[in-house]
Amino acid sequence: MADTKYVIGLDYGTDSARALVVETATGRTVATSVKYYPRWKKRLYCAPLENKWRQHPLDYIEVLEASVKEALSLCPSGTAENVIGMSFDTTGSTPVFVDETGTPLALLPEFAENPNAMFVLWKDHTAVKEAAEINEACHKEGAVDYTAYEGGIYSSEWWWAKILHVLREDEAVRNAAYSVVEHCDWMPALITGCKSAKDIVRARCSAGHKMMWHEKWGGLPPQEFLSSLDPLLDGYRDRLFTDTATADKPVGKLSQEWADRLGLTTDVVVGVSEFDCHMGAIGANISEHTFVRIIGTSTCDIMVASKEEIGDNLIKGICGQVDGSVIPGMIGLEAGQSAFGDVYAWFRRVLEWPLKNLSGLEGEALEKACDRIIPALTKEAEAMKPGESTVLALDWMNGRRTPDANQLLTGAIAGISLGTSASMIFRALVEATAYGSRAIVERFRREGVRIDSIIGIGGIALKSPFVMQTLSDVLNMPIKVCNTDQACALGAAMCAATAAGAYPTVEAARDAMNSGFAHEYQPIAENVKVYDELYQNYLALGGFVESQVK
Amino acid sequence: MADTKYVIGLDYGTDSARALVVETATGRTVATSVKYYPRWKKRLYCAPLENKWRQHPLDYIEVLEASVKEALSLCPSGTAENVIGMSFDTTGSTPVFVDETGTPLALLPEFAENPNAMFVLWKDHTAVKEAAEINEACHKEGAVDYTAYEGGIYSSEWWWAKILHVLREDEAVRNAAYSVVEHCDWMPALITGCKSAKDIVRARCSAGHKMMWHEKWGGLPPQEFLSSLDPLLDGYRDRLFTDTATADKPVGKLSQEWADRLGLTTDVVVGVSEFDCHMGAIGANISEHTFVRIIGTSTCDIMVASKEEIGDNLIKGICGQVDGSVIPGMIGLEAGQSAFGDVYAWFRRVLEWPLKNLSGLEGEALEKACDRIIPALTKEAEAMKPGESTVLALDWMNGRRTPDANQLLTGAIAGISLGTSASMIFRALVEATAYGSRAIVERFRREGVRIDSIIGIGGIALKSPFVMQTLSDVLNMPIKVCNTDQACALGAAMCAATAAGAYPTVEAARDAMNSGFAHEYQPIAENVKVYDELYQNYLALGGFVESQVK
Repeated sequence: MADTKYVIGLDYGTDSARALVVETATGRTVATSVKYYPRWKKRLYCAPLENKWRQHPLDYIEVLEASVKEALSLCPSGTAENVIGMSFDTTGSTPVFVDETGTPLALLPEFAENPNAMFVLWKDHTAVKEAAEINEACHKEGAVDYTAYEGGIYSSEWWWAKILHVLREDEAVRNAAYSVVEHCDWMPALITGCKSAKDIVRARCSAGHKMMWHEKWGGLPPQEFLSSLDPLLDGYRDRLFTDTATADKPVGKLSQEWADRLGLTTDVVVGVSEFDCHMGAIGANISEHTFVRIIGTSTCDIMVASKEEIGDNLIKGICGQVDGSVIPGMIGLEAGQSAFGDVYAWFRRVLEWPLKNLSGLEGEALEKACDRIIPALTKEAEAMKPGESTVLALDWMNGRRTPDANQLLTGAIAGISLGTSASMIFRALVEATAYGSRAIVERFRREGVRIDSIIGIGGIALKSPFVMQTLSDVLNMPIKVCNTDQACALGAAMCAATAAGAYPTVEAARDAMNSGFAHEYQPIAENVKVYDELYQNYLALGGFVESQVK
Repeated sequence: MADTKYVIGLDYGTDSARALVVETATGRTVATSVKYYPRWKKRLYCAPLENKWRQHPLDYIEVLEASVKEALSLCPSGTAENVIGMSFDTTGSTPVFVDETGTPLALLPEFAENPNAMFVLWKDHTAVKEAAEINEACHKEGAVDYTAYEGGIYSSEWWWAKILHVLREDEAVRNAAYSVVEHCDWMPALITGCKSAKDIVRARCSAGHKMMWHEKWGGLPPQEFLSSLDPLLDGYRDRLFTDTATADKPVGKLSQEWADRLGLTTDVVVGVSEFDCHMGAIGANISEHTFVRIIGTSTCDIMVASKEEIGDNLIKGICGQVDGSVIPGMIGLEAGQSAFGDVYAWFRRVLEWPLKNLSGLEGEALEKACDRIIPALTKEAEAMKPGESTVLALDWMNGRRTPDANQLLTGAIAGISLGTSASMIFRALVEATAYGSRAIVERFRREGVRIDSIIGIGGIALKSPFVMQTLSDVLNMPIKVCNTDQACALGAAMCAATAAGAYPTVEAARDAMNSGFAHEYQPIAENVKVYDELYQNYLALGGFVESQVK
């Protein structure tokens, strides 16, 4: 027992963060703690109608301390002393402006309440205009296409668009900002005691997928290009970075301050971070020709391919192909849907309206009634057959990430008759998210990437057999569901174990520490046939909505 | 006082019937009684998902007795003896199969529970296939187009389609049926004691608008045409009728049985009926170039034009142009939306789901909460500006009646983002019903019919300033709202007074008995401009939905 070593995987999702204490040798989870971001929970600093979503750095700090301490308190005594590594995964692109010391501006008293000084959450779409400008600059006659390895379309959810938007909008932030840091890079910098923005270790994953970083152009795009977007970006390239690191590498060791705050030792190695979906893919046992889907509020879809398979192929309309972004030495491919669970959550909010305004319920009773909406809808919806109702939905309520990013697109519900019920709409929304998944799979295949099987992870994969069966039917593929509800944090733990030297490679850690599969869904032939036809209607509806957005 | 004469207007709507006791000389309402159809209220004999809507003749009989007796009980003593006339208006086309005595089959014990032996309510869409066959037969090369005076497209809501559908579906009804009677013709036949199906007086209004009756082909279409649709129609033309009567004419006098049952004398003249919207238009003070809209669950839109204005013009895509269907001597033009208030009622039902399933409310408290949905949505929606949200709806939840009937069309809600709220959807639905109205107005104008002003009547016209202002803004026309919530029953009273000889013409009765206007809405210039643009998006969405239905 004295020899048992542990690692901590820290997974920062959209609404909450999780700390997972894991046995390094086996991958066995010893303790877990989940903490919700307190300010975010109150929707402070956000403007949903403008798709403006910001998170305060204090939310990240407070849940770090609370979750690690709680998880350790649940472990046998002696565990904390034997923790050898920690790695983070986070959402992204979620950048924040920092001063010369690498401190997010919102941590300075004068910016404490300014949303532009906070992290611009992945799903913030305020930078639609700036993304369009970047696309124009990259795609005009004779230009170098810096988006080429990010699917050929730059998204308003990504780094440079968001930076440019905030710089233009907020003079105070503009004047106080020295550099910009991605959430996944700030967390290790924070707890290793990094005191200079220029010294922050930057992850290959976020740099390659969201920042137009590529070895072909020696790192970030040249300053000349950035300044041509807007002189407000003058000087940023030099103050940012050139080198990037993969997740098998250490950033440093825990600072004395943070060792004290977390109850750990300064021997703890802090690894390079990745985005949640990339770590999740590792935790989910990713290998070649496997399509791993992290299914939560949105989806993140990850594949790894050998450099030989990809060769010089540029895959269009996805979120990038980056050497080493998932597993060092392989090409990581990313795609995803802008909204998945969020589509259901949207409908839940619509149905909450009468409960909140007309039922007389309050407090906990109201919350309980609201929490029953999705389960009750699911029960009714799964009793229907595919094609039984005429309702057809389009899942672009948060725009479309892939294939072919376009955040100006919107969702729709068609085929409504006077007999259309709430649960028919819900079923159509579930089917729509599955059709959106199919559009991604079909794009990968068209671009020559082989997909043999699907692995599902994330809240919805584990909690909703109805959604997963629909997905299997619409995709006409079996779907394995991971035997853990913490694949991202487990993947982070695998990377932490590698960075700390317990394994020679991420693959070795994955093989030793994975949790296996809980369930496998098989497509139902008669449903597959119906959905094959209905999918054509989905494509037609999508084509119409797209034709209206020019 | 002893000389004061009264008439009773009886208005049979979708959910309830009203009896209005009116002073013949002034049009002053002395008493009103509203009664709901008891079986219909429980949705007996209906299948909403199949759009199958049936009403039992006992519902009509019971509310007749109850409403007339209650209304009379509210009048000064001596009123009943001085009632000189009664006329009905009803929904339509709402036909029922009858035996040789003119008795609806559902009144026979063996058919008492058979929905096919009951009235097939106007909004029943079970006969979509049969309507398509009629259209095909009328529009094929070299055929006579018997739909020409009914807008050129026969609807599944109409007489022959419904008759054919039931004949095909129900052998028992087929064998027992002798003839078919429209609801508006059965009511006078019933209370005047008519004992033979062949003697039932048929109204010009229903015959001309729904039964392909026209003087050009000597009444109903020839038997040869009917039999070519299906031999099941063999013999029907002879057993139906050739002549029709306008609403200024009497059918007969109250039978002894019904005089006793209603507490009236056998001197009461019973007038020829019309559809509710036609009588409503009279009650609403219709005159040339005025577009009268009866706005309730659906709309019925009525105009009258001189024979000179219309000439040989065939107006496409409306519900008919019939000599004398509204005011004898003029061409009555009918159009309408298949769903108007029903669109809001549909959304109300969706939002009732959480209240009914998750709130714990029951009985009266539940009913009250449900009743507050539309008022609460209205309050939130009217605080928004046109174009403030991206939501765009299509109002075809019950198909499209005009322009260009197509019951296969469905409704839609587009432009949905994660921030889309229940009240934004509601506002979009209200706007959609207004866009649907505009499509009708534009069709009339394109076909050369002059429209100078609009008169609104019906529940929504009086109760929802928000809906009426939106309608005025979208149509860019002022809208006058009638100073009565009983325009249909009042119009029936005017016709009853004419049939009983108190006035020489319906126009004279209208001029003497009308109730004036309660309010006039003026279009708001800045809203008009926004809606002019948004209407183009509505047309595009409609065009797409139509392209998907072949």
